[in-house]
This record gives sequence, C-alpha cells and structure tokens, in this order.
Amino acid sequence: MTTIKDSVHDHISVGGVAEDLLDTGPVQRLRRVAQLGTVKLVYPSANHTRFEHSLGVYHLADRALDSLGIEGTEAERVRAAALLHDIGHAPFSHNVEELLHRHTGLYHDDVTDLLVDTEIGDVLLEHDLDPERIAGLIAGEGQYGQLVSGELDVDRMDYLVRDAHHTGVPYGTIDHERLVRELTFADGDLVLDEGNVQTAESLLMARALMTPTVYAHPVARISKAMLRRATERLIATPDIDARSVRRMDDYDLISALRMTPETEAFADRYDRRDLFKRAVWAEYDDTPASLREADHEAIRELEADIAERASVSPSEIVLDVPAEPSMAESTSEVLGGGEVRRLGDHSPLVTALRTAQARQWRMGVYTVADATDRVGKAAVDVLGLDIEGTLVSDVRQRVHATLDEFEADAAGVDE
Amino acid sequence: MTTIKDSVHDHISVGGVAEDLLDTGPVQRLRRVAQLGTVKLVYPSANHTRFEHSLGVYHLADRALDSLGIEGTEAERVRAAALLHDIGHAPFSHNVEELLHRHTGLYHDDVTDLLVDTEIGDVLLEHDLDPERIAGLIAGEGQYGQLVSGELDVDRMDYLVRDAHHTGVPYGTIDHERLVRELTFADGDLVLDEGNVQTAESLLMARALMTPTVYAHPVARISKAMLRRATERLIATPDIDARSVRRMDDYDLISALRMTPETEAFADRYDRRDLFKRAVWAEYDDTPASLREADHEAIRELEADIAERASVSPSEIVLDVPAEPSMAESTSEVLGGGEVRRLGDHSPLVTALRTAQARQWRMGVYTVADATDRVGKAAVDVLGLDIEGTLVSDVRQRVHATLDEFEADAAGVDE
Amino acid sequence: MTTIKDSVHDHISVGGVAEDLLDTGPVQRLRRVAQLGTVKLVYPSANHTRFEHSLGVYHLADRALDSLGIEGTEAERVRAAALLHDIGHAPFSHNVEELLHRHTGLYHDDVTDLLVDTEIGDVLLEHDLDPERIAGLIAGEGQYGQLVSGELDVDRMDYLVRDAHHTGVPYGTIDHERLVRELTFADGDLVLDEGNVQTAESLLMARALMTPTVYAHPVARISKAMLRRATERLIATPDIDARSVRRMDDYDLISALRMTPETEAFADRYDRRDLFKRAVWAEYDDTPASLREADHEAIRELEADIAERASVSPSEIVLDVPAEPSMAESTSEVLGGGEVRRLGDHSPLVTALRTAQARQWRMGVYTVADATDRVGKAAVDVLGLDIEGTLVSDVRQRVHATLDEFEADAAGVDE
Amino acid sequence: MTTIKDSVHDHISVGGVAEDLLDTGPVQRLRRVAQLGTVKLVYPSANHTRFEHSLGVYHLADRALDSLGIEGTEAERVRAAALLHDIGHAPFSHNVEELLHRHTGLYHDDVTDLLVDTEIGDVLLEHDLDPERIAGLIAGEGQYGQLVSGELDVDRMDYLVRDAHHTGVPYGTIDHERLVRELTFADGDLVLDEGNVQTAESLLMARALMTPTVYAHPVARISKAMLRRATERLIATPDIDARSVRRMDDYDLISALRMTPETEAFADRYDRRDLFKRAVWAEYDDTPASLREADHEAIRELEADIAERASVSPSEIVLDVPAEPSMAESTSEVLGGGEVRRLGDHSPLVTALRTAQARQWRMGVYTVADATDRVGKAAVDVLGLDIEGTLVSDVRQRVHATLDEFEADAAGVDE
Repeated sequence: MTTIKDSVHDHISVGGVAEDLLDTGPVQRLRRVAQLGTVKLVYPSANHTRFEHSLGVYHLADRALDSLGIEGTEAERVRAAALLHDIGHAPFSHNVEELLHRHTGLYHDDVTDLLVDTEIGDVLLEHDLDPERIAGLIAGEGQYGQLVSGELDVDRMDYLVRDAHHTGVPYGTIDHERLVRELTFADGDLVLDEGNVQTAESLLMARALMTPTVYAHPVARISKAMLRRATERLIATPDIDARSVRRMDDYDLISALRMTPETEAFADRYDRRDLFKRAVWAEYDDTPASLREADHEAIRELEADIAERASVSPSEIVLDVPAEPSMAESTSEVLGGGEVRRLGDHSPLVTALRTAQARQWRMGVYTVADATDRVGKAAVDVLGLDIEGTLVSDVRQRVHATLDEFEADAAGVDE
Repeated sequence: MTTIKDSVHDHISVGGVAEDLLDTGPVQRLRRVAQLGTVKLVYPSANHTRFEHSLGVYHLADRALDSLGIEGTEAERVRAAALLHDIGHAPFSHNVEELLHRHTGLYHDDVTDLLVDTEIGDVLLEHDLDPERIAGLIAGEGQYGQLVSGELDVDRMDYLVRDAHHTGVPYGTIDHERLVRELTFADGDLVLDEGNVQTAESLLMARALMTPTVYAHPVARISKAMLRRATERLIATPDIDARSVRRMDDYDLISALRMTPETEAFADRYDRRDLFKRAVWAEYDDTPASLREADHEAIRELEADIAERASVSPSEIVLDVPAEPSMAESTSEVLGGGEVRRLGDHSPLVTALRTAQARQWRMGVYTVADATDRVGKAAVDVLGLDIEGTLVSDVRQRVHATLDEFEADAAGVDE
Repeated sequence: MTTIKDSVHDHISVGGVAEDLLDTGPVQRLRRVAQLGTVKLVYPSANHTRFEHSLGVYHLADRALDSLGIEGTEAERVRAAALLHDIGHAPFSHNVEELLHRHTGLYHDDVTDLLVDTEIGDVLLEHDLDPERIAGLIAGEGQYGQLVSGELDVDRMDYLVRDAHHTGVPYGTIDHERLVRELTFADGDLVLDEGNVQTAESLLMARALMTPTVYAHPVARISKAMLRRATERLIATPDIDARSVRRMDDYDLISALRMTPETEAFADRYDRRDLFKRAVWAEYDDTPASLREADHEAIRELEADIAERASVSPSEIVLDVPAEPSMAESTSEVLGGGEVRRLGDHSPLVTALRTAQARQWRMGVYTVADATDRVGKAAVDVLGLDIEGTLVSDVRQRVHATLDEFEADAAGVDE
Repeated sequence: MTTIKDSVHDHISVGGVAEDLLDTGPVQRLRRVAQLGTVKLVYPSANHTRFEHSLGVYHLADRALDSLGIEGTEAERVRAAALLHDIGHAPFSHNVEELLHRHTGLYHDDVTDLLVDTEIGDVLLEHDLDPERIAGLIAGEGQYGQLVSGELDVDRMDYLVRDAHHTGVPYGTIDHERLVRELTFADGDLVLDEGNVQTAESLLMARALMTPTVYAHPVARISKAMLRRATERLIATPDIDARSVRRMDDYDLISALRMTPETEAFADRYDRRDLFKRAVWAEYDDTPASLREADHEAIRELEADIAERASVSPSEIVLDVPAEPSMAESTSEVLGGGEVRRLGDHSPLVTALRTAQARQWRMGVYTVADATDRVGKAAVDVLGLDIEGTLVSDVRQRVHATLDEFEADAAGVDE
C-alpha cells in the first residue's frame, strides 16, 4: 500500500492492482498531460495534470465503492478503471480531441488498444482482470461503469474541486464528500439517495459556473483553437500522424510544434502568449444554422474566403464553431419517496441551466491583433451574420445586444 | 488603527469612527448574539456571532469604497453603517425578529433609537456624523445605502462566505473579492460592471443552495419555532417586555427562559436538544391559501384545535407557516453593453431559482416525539390538507408526492 | 449512524455508544462551553465550543483506532472516552479550572462522578461499558488511555487544527491526517512510526507558536484573570459553590455573575470588553522565586499591599503569576531504527522549545486603566522586582531588556 | 491594470512596468519552468511554475511597499525586480543550477545579461528604469534589495505558502499577511517590527519543516541528481552548451534529453519514474571530511572507483554530496525595545534549527535497483565510511544509528 499526498484529498492510499498500474509508462505519462490544456494561459496556477486527477478519481471511486458496499473483483475492476480512465487523453487533454477523433475515430475514452496492447494489459492480467472489461467500464458500460463515466461519476466530482483549487475560481467547490456518500443504485441506475435534489442541483450549478469562467473562457478557446490548427498542420506533415500524437505527452507535442517549420510560428506565439484576438463573436441566434452545422471542410473553405477578402494569410484566421449546446445534464437521477426521479423532469433549474448554456454559446473568428477590424468585417459578409454588432471592435463604443458579451474575460489575464 | 484577525478575511484594519464604535456596549453586545441562531443545533460549528460578521461587512465595505473611489465623510458614513448594520438584532438574530416586530413595530434594521439614544450617538457626533443619516444607510436609503442593504450589498457577501466557513457547507463560497471589485454605480444604482452576469448569478445560486441546506434547515426551523414560542410566553409575563428582549444578548435570553416558570420546560428541551418532531409537512400547493395567509391569532386558534383533537397540551404544538416565497432576488442589476440590465429580466436562472424557492416552501406542524402520529392526523383534518401523504409517519413506507421530502435533513444531526 | 457536518473534518459519522451519548445532557452542555474561554475577546472568530471539539476528537480517535487495527469493545471504550473527554470542563473551559480545583480537588479530567452518577452512566451500562474504566481512559490510564490523553493524543491534534481554523492564526495547521496514520504501539507505548521525527517536531512547533499567540495572549490572560477573580467572589457567596459552577455552562456563569452584586461590576466590564491593563510585566528571571512559588493566600495579601500602597481598591488589582514553565513536551516518543526514542533526548528542537517557553513566562499585575502608573510603581516595590523596566508605562520610551515584550499583542484587538 | 486570478493570493492586480514586462518572452518562459523541479515526482500536485510564483512575489512586494510607504520610482523598481527575480532560473529551477554555475559562472540571480540584452531591457528603459539597477535589487543589493532577496524577503513568504498549497504539505502555511505588514526599516536594515520574535521564528520553523519533507525529500534528491548528471552529459555533447540550457524551458530540456543518444536512457527512466535507489545514506559525522569537501572531479573519480569495484557501469552510479549545512538563517532581525536584535543571538530556536538542519544532512550513493547491495558495500569501502549501518539494505533488520533514517520518505510515493 502506497500513500500519496494530494493537494485536494490530502492522503490517498493506493493498493492492489492500482499500485502496480501506477508504475506503468502510460499512467506515468499522465504526469505530463495538462488537465486543462491551454486554460493555464488564462489562469496561471492551473498547471495540474491528468495524473493527479486520476489519483483523485481513484480515491473517490474507492470511497464510493466502500459506501456502496461493493467489494472483491468487482470493486478492483472499478478502481482500475478509475485510475486508468484518462489514459486515452492526448497532449493538452481535450484541446485536440476532436481533431484526433476525425483522424483516428477514437475519443479519449476509447482505450481498448491502450489497455490490451501495452504493459497495462500485463498488469491487469497478472491481477486476473480482463482489459476489455476495464475498457468497457471506462466507456461507461454496465452498472458500475456509471461510477466512472456517467451523470454522477466520481470523475466530475474530482475535476470540479481540483480545477477550483488550482485555478482559484471557487465555483467548483462542491460537497464531494456528501455526494460520494449519497450515491446508491436503484434498478441498476446510479442515483443519489433520498433528500438530495439540492445536492444534485449543486453539482449542475458548479458546472454551469465553471464552464464559461474556466473551461470555455474566450482566451482559452482562442489558444485552444490555435493549438488545434497547429496540430492539424503537424499531422499533415509526413513524419507525424494522428495516432502518434495521441500517445505523446505535452513535452512531445510542444517540441514537435517548435521543430516543424509549418508550425514553428504557432509555437513561438504560444510561448510568448501572443494570441490571436477575436474579430467576431456571435451568439447562437445570430449565427446561420448552416454555419453551426458546417463540417470541417466547409469551415476550412470559409476561413479561406474570409482570409482572401480581408487580405490576410489563411494561417492567420481561425473560425471557431462550437458544437451544439449539450443536453447531457438532464439525465441525473435522484431518489424521491422511494422512486427514481430524473432531475431534468422535476428541477426547473435544470431547464434554466440548459437555457443559460445555450445563451453562452458563441461562434468566434480569431485573427492577428492588427487585422481584427478588416477580418471582422469580412467575416460578417462571408458568414452572412445578420448583425454588425458582433464586431469586437465596436463593442465598447455602443450599446450591445448581449448582456454578457465579455463576461468571462475579466477573470484572468486580459487578451 | 487597530488590526483584528478574522478567520474569514484574515487581517481587518479598523480605523476612524469605526475604531471608536468598536468599544461601545451595543457593538460589543454583538459578540454574544449568534449569527445563525438555532442553526448551531444542526451544524455544531456554527457558533459565529454578529460581531465578527459586522467586522467582515465593515471590511468589505471599506474595500468596495476603495474600489469605487468614494472617500471622505461619505465613505466614513458608509463604514460606520457597515459596522453598525446589525446593531438592532435581538438575541438569536432573526429567530425572534417577527415576534418582536409584532410587539414593537421594529425590524432589526430599524435602528434610529439605538443610534440616537445610546453612547453610539455620542461617538458618531464626536466624528461629526449624523446618527439619523447612518440609520438611513442601514435601512438601505440613498445611493450608498445600497452598499449596506440592497441586492448587491456587502452584508450578503460576508455572510455567505462566513456561514460556509463555520458550518462547513461549501455552497456559500462565492468569489467575494471579485464581487467587491466589480461593483459600480450607474444612474445612482449599485450594479455589477460589464461582464458579470455569471458573477451575479453565482451569488444567487449560493443563496439558493444555502437557504434550504442551512438557513431553513427543517431542524433549525423547528428549534426556531420553539424558541419563538417560548419567547412569546416570556414577554407575556409581567417582568419582561418585547423592547427589553430586543436589547438582550443570547445569555440574557437563555437565562430568562431558564428562570421563568412558563418557559423553563422549553429551556430544558433546548439545553438537551430534545426538540419537537414534525407531525405534518406540507407543500405550498397542498396548503390551503387561507392557512398560508392566516394571521397570528388564527394560527394560535388552529393550534388549540389541533391540540384538543389530538389530546395534547397546546404548549406541545407548533404550527409553523412561513411567509410567501420571496421575489426579492429579481432586482439585481448588471451592466451589459453600457446599459443597466435587471438580472431577473434576462437570466432564466433567476426565474428558475424563484420557482425552486417556491417549491421548497413547507408548512410544518411540530409536536413532542410520541404524539406525532395523532397530531399529524388531527392537523390534516383541522387544517383541511388534501393529501394524507404529508404525514411524516407514513413517508418511509410509501411513494411520496414530493421529490425532496427530507432533503436538507441529511446534512446535519438528524432529528 | 448519524452524520454530522463539521467545519474542520467535514463529515463525522457517529455510531454505537457515541450516538447514544450525544443525546445526554452533559454532552449537550458542551455546546455552551467556549473552547478557548476568553480568547474570543482577542480573536473574535474564536467562538467554537467543547462540543464540536469533542466530536473532532471522537472522529480522530476513530480514525486512529482503524489505522491501529483496534476493534470491538476496546475500541468502543476509546471512542466513548474520546467523545466524553471534556465533560468535566467548567464554563469557559480552562479559565477557572485551577480555582475550582482548589475548592473541589477536581481537574477537568476527573470525571468519575460525572460518568457514574449521571445519565451518561446509564448509556454506558446499556452498552456494557464500565463507566469507571472510561473515566480511567479519560485520565490517560492504561495503554489506550494514551490515545485520549497523552503526548500524542488525538485531543491535541484536533484542538490545534480547530483553534487555527477559528482564530485565523495558521500556526496550528498540522498534518493531522498523517499523525493519525503514523501512530503505533511499541512495548505498550503510543509512539510515531519510523521516519516521523519531523512529524513529531511539527506538533511541538505548532504548540510552541500557538501558545503565546493564542492560548496565553496577554489580553486573554488579563480577561481570564479577571474572570477567575470574579468567579472566586461568586463562590464566596452563600448561594453558589464550586461544585455547582463546575456543572454550569457559559450562560449560567455569565448570568450568575451579572445578577450577583459582588460580581456585577466585573460582568459589566466583561460585556463592554473594558478590561484591566498591564501595570507590570516581568520575566521569569526578574521575578523573585518567592513570588513565583507564592500560594493563593500569599498572592491575595500581596495584592492587598499593592492596592493599599497605590490607593486603589483591592478589587481593582490582579496579580497573575503563572505556573512554572511546563516540561511536559519532552516525553513524545518516535520509532527510530526499530527502537523507541524519546524525542526530548534526540531533538535539539525540543530543548530549544522548552527554553523558548521559559523565556515567554511573564508575571503580570493588572489594574484599571487610569491607575497603571501608580500600581506599577507600587508593585515593583511590594514584589521586590529588581528592574523598573518592566513598568509598562515606560516601555515605549526606552530600550527594554526583553526582545519580545509585547509580541503577541499585535495579533488581535489591542488592549 | 490587469487582474490575474491566483490560487494562493486570489486576485493580483498588475500595473505599471510590471504589466508590460508580463508580455515579454523571458517572463512568459517562466510558465514552463517547474517551481520545484523534480519534487513533482514525490508530490504529484506540485506542478506549479516560476511564473505564478513570480506573480505572487510581485504581489507581496507591492503590499509590503504599500505598508512601508515607499512610492514612486523606487517602488516601481522593486516591483519590477520582484516580477523578474527568477528570470535567471534554468529549466527545473534549482535542479541544475550548480552544474550551470560551474560552466557559466552564473547563479539564477545573476541576471544582468538577461535584463540588458533582451526585450526586458527595452521595456525597462521605456519606463525610465535602469536594467542594471534592477539586476542589483534582484541580487539583494541596497536597502530595498532586501525586500527581494534577503532574510525576510517576500520571495520566501510566497514560496512557502505556495509550495504548501500545491504539495498539500501544510508546514509552509505561514501568516504571510502579518509578515508583510510587520516589515520595517531600521538603520537601513529590513527588520520585523516590535513584538514579532515569534513571527520571525514561525518563518524559520516553516522552512525547517518544509526542507526535509519537500525540498530535500530523498526521492526528489535522487531524481534531481539523475537529472543533473544527464544534463551534464548533454552539455558535453557538441550541440548544446551550458549557456543555452540556461535559457531553455522544461520542454526544451526534456526533449533535448530524449533526443540525445547519451541521455535518452535517463529520459526514459525519468518518464517512467524508474529512479535509482539509495545504496548508501550516511550522516554528516559518518562522512569523512575529505569527501564532504571533495570537488566535482574528485567525486567523478570516486564514482568510477565504486562502479568498478561493484561491477556496474559508471553511468549507473550517482554520488550525491550536499553542500555544508547553511548558516544563513541566523541573520534575521527583529525590533525589540526600540533596538535591532539579531534573531540568532536571542532565539534558542535558531540555534536548534541550525543543529537540526546539520543533523538532517545526508550523503547518498544511488544506483539501479538490483545493484544497491553490491554498490552499497563498494561505496563503504571506497569512501571510507566508518559504519556499515548506513547500508540501506540493512536498515530494516537492525537497530540503526539514526533516528530519522527514512523519515521524509513516507510523505510521498515510495521509492
């Protein structure tokens, strides 16, 4: 049994298969993968890694299993899955996930290959655990998979608290000890026990506040979009493909970007924090549906059009269209009067949070600092935006249509 | 300049009129008035006082004034008002406020008499400050009164953080440093500056979570109702009137309750934490409007009826009907695109929180532990409740109509 | 099993005999006994009680028992002792302990009568636990008594962290989780396991810093001396004896002091925080040995002499002579290379801390604010102090013989 | 004025020259230099950087200047120096500092070249600040240089608190707000004001506990020794010299180590956390003076001798001889009775802490896991150690001569 000191959960005891897994290369790699990717450019203290987060998730899973009375091989499987759940993350975590998925078909929780083909598989087999089954748990399959990946998983409980601790933004400070103690199973569903509607709501509110303030902070989005674009160029070179990027750590990726002629300009910008600026920032309703649904190719073409019209290099334009606002929150379940209740059906807050999330949706066009004006105007034309007000250059001069235009900005280093 | 160590804000520097006010009897009395009254029976660490809270409010007011660039006499007035804002609280803070108001016509922020007639008035005059004007600020009058008592006042910022620190419930952990820095005046209204919709929403969410979990926890409500009832009996005795209770501290009140024959049974129960239990617990929609609007006299009669039908002493019944759910939240204002926006008009969350608040409303009938069954049945009849399901004795056996029946209970010591 | 939210340890689960003990009057009384007595007059946030501390000690004992592998009746006894260990504290905790000991022969850990004669005894017997044996554990008897009362007891681990949390003074922030995990028994002695010399030292350093800054802060000492003197007068009245004071709570004592003619002046001073001031403050070496060893009677006579010479009322003089510096720290034990080592024999820090402690020793003479000068001069003569420099009135004007004259003062509200 | 959110000091406002300095490459590089180098292999949460620390030091300097009443250009210089004070740190901070010093003659606070020759110089000149003078402040020159680099500098105040926050080890939790407020100048010396002997002692105690537990944790020392050795090999290759390493960030160094044939084996070990183990661990008194004073060449030869005798490759042996225990602590000064007192002359604790520090000194010989036994025996012979007990392989079986043999180990991941 090894004891590890953690800045969030204090002492974490690691035993059984987890202790052996700790010493494998793929788990140690997580020490060099930033938990929040480029968010550290906004919140300078946010240098925490997927490794400490994985230890935290392991710890909370262990506490939850204890509270649920799950023991033996079943529990050992869940603990292994908890420790390994982020093994599939590429450098900078979610930042390049979509890009790699386009090329490899894999998301960060598709880890069968990593469990079966690597030394991790050996360790699991030594402990009589089936790698494919662990991979299934990580993908959220089966009753116990909900503990690792689901609406009420311990992953979320750890990251909210940990991200709050390291960014300094208090909104993620949930009552995770209570959450873990109140988990129970009802008809095979992981739910919160009687009397926990507010506990469940508090988890949703924490995420609702952390998302715009931290995870989708405009500056983090810009730097992430730039990193994604640079990585795309990198894997277009003959030497590096998407599968190899997936197994890199942050050091590998940054150093590849620095050494590759096609990406060294980006690397220099990243190192100096000399980021693109917003030229246009448009709300959901002001963005044509065709643009919201545009695929990768289409977006590339639109960027080229904007670049041409604004007379800038296409490499200096990023068109950043987020996915549709997610509805994922709505399935949290809570026991009430002995019955399983879907939070989304009963809590007016859930609906409101969903609406608020949609309201926060923004499409952005980013470019170099001295071209924001002409790129902004070109983008309005090319993209067919129906209001001019979204031009960032205008926003301080006149009454703007949106309440929360720049709201998250003020939290960190200004652009 | 005196420096005081505070467990929430670390070092608080107190100078000017505030330093002299510190040494007055009415301010020192606040050391012996529990910030959260009977909440300490649920959260044993919640023994903090109105004194430390008043220091905290003074400190945040000082920071806000600094950030707003307000100086001189104007600022000194606000600082005095901040330190004095709770001077009118009776023992156990809000617990007996309604009762005393019925008898004296005064709420805790009606403090003109306390500022004018006591040594506080002398200190204010020595510093060339008009006591009546300070009283006005405490009542929220004028532009700067909003800093002390308003939607975005520093009072709330302090108590949320402080109550979280002392109860251990993390929900109140707001970003108070940011809030204080982002305050600004627009057309005489205290608002949050551009880019703070989420900051404003976070304040509302913190309150929305703290209220049922802490402030209106069912056990705190029961003990508060019992204390209120006992205090009512106390002021019905010839020796003690409502005005004198208002100037007591917690020691005075508890010791008066112990020594008065009419209230010693309550005092003994309080000391042993031998509280009444819920016999009925009904939601807003299940409670007849006539009952929700019943005045003090009517409630007293209903209690007598229930007592008679259940064959218990009227002193063993409390009918606890809260006020209508408040709409007060809806007036928070935020700057957006240069215009003042009322948060309630723009944030779907505000509406949702208001709905959630209404949903948490509960009417309760409390009695001694061994009479809950028959009192419950009697109350359903007498009060004309249309569902039986609200009988607490039934609730574990069958599917109940409400989601969050006992939800706040689990947080603290069970009944 | 009841779960209680604590501001220091978060959730505390209370089961078995402890859960039943919670509901007894003597345990509930601890809710109304201030953990740090008059320290709250220096640190306004320090309103925590013996009740929450007792829960904390219970919690840490439970963790330690778990880590040590102690189960069954033996463990249940220790848990009961941990919860009950402070049951013998009088109002304001240690403040009047010596006084009551002089009259009753009992210290706060002499609790046999409280366990045997009260409802606590009934609860213990229902759980087949022998009250006298529990009382023995509380007094530190037997191998397991060391967990409750000894050099490395969980009492100290809780109070250091809790007092730090509530005063805001960070010095008590020890690594209590590690301490509890590293406890082990060697030849019947409770020791820290291999590799914990620094862990042990950290505990001593925390106390060494908390003592002058918090526990023996000059202003806390003055107010404690005043309270002790007033209580002495109280038990000299016919109605109240020392044994009854021992069972009072803070409310009882304060209200008795307010209502008794001989003590109401003190009560008024206490309520207004209008405390005596130091007239003389002398170091150990400057205080004649005869004075350091003087008994209660002798001190009373010296006070009368000083009062006469200075023409003040004897009730306005307090001569405060602390006990000899304690050597208690020296017996902490740690495993090293398989052998039990006494920390005091090996750690130069222990010796240094002991020296530092002796250096902090101060004898004080306190009186009303406007008499400090003449009382100071009279005291120097009457007590035969050989330096004048200890007159507080002189100290700001000239180079003083001691380094740390007023050092702790600055931490809290100034005198 | 930019506001940056920090996990330790909350909001940090950066203005004036500091705001412009933020955007320079050399300051941004600090985002990619780990504050504690290889300590992150022991404490997984310790991923904080020199950048956030530099912001913290800037913030505390600003507070101290405010409290000291220093304004204008003088203050602006100190603020610039505070932000820039770590600009000279090589990758992994102190880990390779001695090595680079041997080759370049520069320590991390020799920054004249970095201030004069880079864009930083331009920014300073734009603000009419002389780069050489700022470099002087960073080196601790002049009266105000003491604020940046001295016994009571704000550098230390920030790193103790920050390292505690990120490692989870509470020992560094000092009262930094008080320290900053109590600074004053006496005869040109930066000292703590009257009444702060314990405040000064608390700073020393915090360091005394953090050093063995964090900064010189045995596993951190081993990994640091391995990194130093590998870096030495790196700069022995034709492509990379010491001066270029000094300007690298952690990404550059790790990636250079990975790609250089002579160091790729180390890089692989580092990535897998497959570290050398201790073969011998000897106390100060058991280590011949000749060895303690041996220079770099001599140590290299001794390693070769041990390797030969134990039949292992010289690249698998590290002989790690720390510098003599530092006496630096003894010069802290505090005002007492109006005079400046040197803490070391008055505080028995200072002497004790110095003794304790000497007692913690350990010489180590490290090697691959399966060679510890034979390397240990060879080292005892070659180095002329006079006790066999220092063989790590023996230590669990028999009584060992040292109390605190493995003490710091238990804190983090075991070797």
